[in-house]
Amino acid sequence: MKKMIAASLLTSAALIASPSFAETVEVKLNVVEKDLVIDNAGTKHPMWTYNGQVPGPLLRVKQGDVIEFSITNDATNKNSHSIDFHASRFDVLDEFESIKPGHSKDFTFSADYPGVFIYHCGSDSMAEHISRGMYGVIIVDPKEGYSEDYPKPDREYVLVQGDVFEPGSSADQRKNGEGWVGAMINGKQFHYDPVHDSNATQTLESEPGERVRFFFVNAMINDAVAFHPIAGIWEQVWDNGNPKNVSWGLQTVEIAPAHGMVLDLISPKDRDTNNALVDHRMKHALNGAISVLMNYKGASKEKGHGDQILLR
Amino acid sequence: MKKMIAASLLTSAALIASPSFAETVEVKLNVVEKDLVIDNAGTKHPMWTYNGQVPGPLLRVKQGDVIEFSITNDATNKNSHSIDFHASRFDVLDEFESIKPGHSKDFTFSADYPGVFIYHCGSDSMAEHISRGMYGVIIVDPKEGYSEDYPKPDREYVLVQGDVFEPGSSADQRKNGEGWVGAMINGKQFHYDPVHDSNATQTLESEPGERVRFFFVNAMINDAVAFHPIAGIWEQVWDNGNPKNVSWGLQTVEIAPAHGMVLDLISPKDRDTNNALVDHRMKHALNGAISVLMNYKGASKEKGHGDQILLR
Amino acid sequence: MKKMIAASLLTSAALIASPSFAETVEVKLNVVEKDLVIDNAGTKHPMWTYNGQVPGPLLRVKQGDVIEFSITNDATNKNSHSIDFHASRFDVLDEFESIKPGHSKDFTFSADYPGVFIYHCGSDSMAEHISRGMYGVIIVDPKEGYSEDYPKPDREYVLVQGDVFEPGSSADQRKNGEGWVGAMINGKQFHYDPVHDSNATQTLESEPGERVRFFFVNAMINDAVAFHPIAGIWEQVWDNGNPKNVSWGLQTVEIAPAHGMVLDLISPKDRDTNNALVDHRMKHALNGAISVLMNYKGASKEKGHGDQILLR
Repeated sequence: MKKMIAASLLTSAALIASPSFAETVEVKLNVVEKDLVIDNAGTKHPMWTYNGQVPGPLLRVKQGDVIEFSITNDATNKNSHSIDFHASRFDVLDEFESIKPGHSKDFTFSADYPGVFIYHCGSDSMAEHISRGMYGVIIVDPKEGYSEDYPKPDREYVLVQGDVFEPGSSADQRKNGEGWVGAMINGKQFHYDPVHDSNATQTLESEPGERVRFFFVNAMINDAVAFHPIAGIWEQVWDNGNPKNVSWGLQTVEIAPAHGMVLDLISPKDRDTNNALVDHRMKHALNGAISVLMNYKGASKEKGHGDQILLR
Repeated sequence: MKKMIAASLLTSAALIASPSFAETVEVKLNVVEKDLVIDNAGTKHPMWTYNGQVPGPLLRVKQGDVIEFSITNDATNKNSHSIDFHASRFDVLDEFESIKPGHSKDFTFSADYPGVFIYHCGSDSMAEHISRGMYGVIIVDPKEGYSEDYPKPDREYVLVQGDVFEPGSSADQRKNGEGWVGAMINGKQFHYDPVHDSNATQTLESEPGERVRFFFVNAMINDAVAFHPIAGIWEQVWDNGNPKNVSWGLQTVEIAPAHGMVLDLISPKDRDTNNALVDHRMKHALNGAISVLMNYKGASKEKGHGDQILLR
Repeated sequence: MKKMIAASLLTSAALIASPSFAETVEVKLNVVEKDLVIDNAGTKHPMWTYNGQVPGPLLRVKQGDVIEFSITNDATNKNSHSIDFHASRFDVLDEFESIKPGHSKDFTFSADYPGVFIYHCGSDSMAEHISRGMYGVIIVDPKEGYSEDYPKPDREYVLVQGDVFEPGSSADQRKNGEGWVGAMINGKQFHYDPVHDSNATQTLESEPGERVRFFFVNAMINDAVAFHPIAGIWEQVWDNGNPKNVSWGLQTVEIAPAHGMVLDLISPKDRDTNNALVDHRMKHALNGAISVLMNYKGASKEKGHGDQILLR
C-alpha cells in the first residue's frame, strides 16, 4: 500500500502516517530561497528553506515505513543545496550530494530507527545553510507503539531551536559564531512567549494534568541546549526518542547540536498553571529561546493534536 | 507533624528532615543584597543572596515531604527578586513571580521527585540575578531510602559551581558572557584548593576507602560543567540524583547549566590519597573550579556529615 | 605472567594485551618536545608529546590487568611534565606530580574500570600541556568479554579529537580559548578526509554491513564534541565504554572534554557507502573534525584490526 504526500502542496505541518502497519510514504520537498519573518515583530531575513518554511515540513512515519523521497532545488535559487536525513543510513557522497538550482534528486529509505531526528542541508558551507533555516524534523514512531515505558501522551508538540545571525554574516563568520544575535523556536524568536515579547500572540496549550510530549530538536550550529521546563520537571526523557533510552525526573536536559530528544511534562491536575520552556543558557533564553505552555481548563482542543503539533 | 525551620536564623547550612516519614517542613528565606567575599584572598563583590549566603541555605527533605515556604525581599534591597524551585511544579507566573523590596510571598509544595535540584532567582534579568549569587540547592532524598542501586554513602558533600563576573558587568553583558572572570565553588574561587591558591585554608576530607557522595549543582548561566575527579573515577552517577538513572564507572560527566547530578567516588582503602575535583574545561578549572578531597586516616569525623556537607 | 611492552620502541600504535586472563603489562613513555606535522599539508607546530606522537601511544589492557608504568621526561626538554591516567585511582599529588627534564617516575596500577579513557599531562598550565599534544588513550577491555549487550565488533577505530592553537599562543590564551584555530583528529586536521582536504590521503575503511566500533576520546580543553556519523546512526553507544551504560539508536552524542565513549556503527550490507564522522559543532567540523569512513567490498583487511586501529 502506498500513500501519496505532496508535502510541497500542504499547508499542514504534519505528515502523519497510519500507525497500523508498514507503509510506503511519498515525500517531496522543494528548496526555496526567500525572505521570511524571523520574529513576532515582522523582521524579515533572507532565508534558505525547505518548502518556504523554517523549520521545513514536519514528517512523521512509523518505524519500518519506506519513504520515497524527492528533493528539488528551485530553479530560481542561486545556490546548490542538499538534504541530510539523520533518520537514514546512506552514502554521504551519493544521496546527500549537492544539487544545482533547477535540478532534483530522488531516493528511498526505510525508517529503521525510532525517535525524533533532524534533517538539514549538508552543502558547503553547512554552517550557512543550516543557520539560514535549512532544517526540519522527522518523527519515527516506534513500531511497538506505546508501552509502560513509553506511554501514550495526551498532547504532542514539536519544538526546533535554531540560530539567528545578522543577515549579512558570511559562512565563515557563522561557522565561528560571529554575528550571532539570537535563538529561534520554530522559526521565530520568542515565538510562543507573550510574557517576554508583546508582539507574540501564540502559546502552547494543554489541560491541567495532561501528559504533554515534546519532540525537541536542536538545530543550532555550535551550541548545546539546556532544556528546562520552568515550574515543572521532565517526567520522563527518551534520548533520541528511542523508548529504550529512558530517564526519569530530570530538571534540565543537555541536547547536543543536531540531536533530538523526547520529553514528557505532566502539569498539576487540580489547578491552572503556566510553564516556560527555556534553554537555561541565558544567552539563548533571553535572546529568544523561551516558550510558554499554558495548562488551563478549557484549553484548545486542537493544539497539540493532528497538524497542530508544530504551530506556525 | 510539622517541623519549623527558620532558615534565616540558622548558621547551619543544612536543613535536614527526618528520613522516617512524610513531614511538613517550614522554610523561610530572606533576600539580601550585600557585599560578599568571593575568593580566599578576601575580594568583595556586590552580591544578591538568599539569607546573605552564596549559595543560599541548603535545604534537605524527603520525597513526599511538604514544604511550607516563605520568601521575603528585604526592605533595604533595591531590586525585585523571586525564587524558582526546580524541585517543584507550579505556575511560573504565580509562585515564581517577582516581589518588590519589603514584600513577601508564601506557597506550599510537596517534593514529588527525588534528587538534587537548584533553586534560583527568576527575575529580570535572570542572567544578572543568578550570576550575582541567587542560587542554592535542595536535596530530595528518595522515599525508598538506600538500595543496591543507590547505596548508603559514608560521607556527603554539596558542591555548587557558579560564575564570577567583573562586578560592574551589566545584565546584558552577563547574558552574553562578557565580563566573565572565573568560577566559584560554594561561593569562592578555589574555595577548597590550597594547591592552586595559597590563601585557601579548607579542603574536603574522607577516610581511605569511603564512599563519598557529591551532590553537584551547576549554577553557571551559560556553560556546562565537565566534572571529573582527578586520580579517581566516578563509581556511580545518578542523573538528577534519581536512583533510577544510574550510570557506572564514568571519568567525566557533562552537567548542563541549571542541572544537578549525584556522583559517588571511592578512594583506595589501603593508602592515603588526594583527589582534585575539577571542571575539566580549562577555562573553568584554572579560573577557580578545582576542589581538593583529602582521603587520609584520621580525617575529620565531622566533615561530610550533618551540617558540614556544605562547607562555608 | 608478565608481558614487556617497551612502548617507546614501538612503531605500532596499539599495545594489545591478551584477553584471556589478568596480566602484568609494562609500559614506558618518554616525553618529547618536538615539532610535529599537524595537518595533511605538512604544517609543523612545536608540540609536546608522549613518545614523539600526537596522540601518544595507544595502550590496551584487559580489566584487572596490572600496569607497571614508567615515564621519563627527556633531558632535552625545557618544561616539567607529568601524566594523569583517567583509568586509574591514585594520589594526584604523588603519582601525577610534575617531573623535571631528565627525571623519571614509576608507578603501578590495576585497570579496575572497563572502557576508554584519556591520559594526559596535568602539569601547569594544563591548558597548554594538553593543547600542545600531551594526550593519549587507554582502552580497558571488560573482563566479561563480549555479550549480547556489548557484542563483538568487526572492526575497531580509535579517534581522538584535540585542539589546534596558533603556535605562539600563551598558556593563558589557550586556557581562555584565544588563538584557537582548529580541531585535529589523531594529530591532524581533516586527517582522514580527502573530501574536504585535497592533501588528505588516508581514510577509515570497512566492509558493507560490518559493525564498526569507535573508541572516541575528546581531548579538547574547553569544548564538548557532538559526535555524529553523517549518513548513519549510532547503533549502540556505551558511556565511557562501560558495557553497563548502553544507549540505542542515537544520531548525535555529546562528549564532554576529557571524556571517552564507545560507539558502534553498522552500514547497509547490500551496497557500498561512505560516512562522514563529524563533530556537528560547525566550528569544529569545518576546521578539521571530519573523518571519512568508506564502507565497500574489498576494503583493506588490515585497517581496523591489530595495530591499525589508530591510523597514523
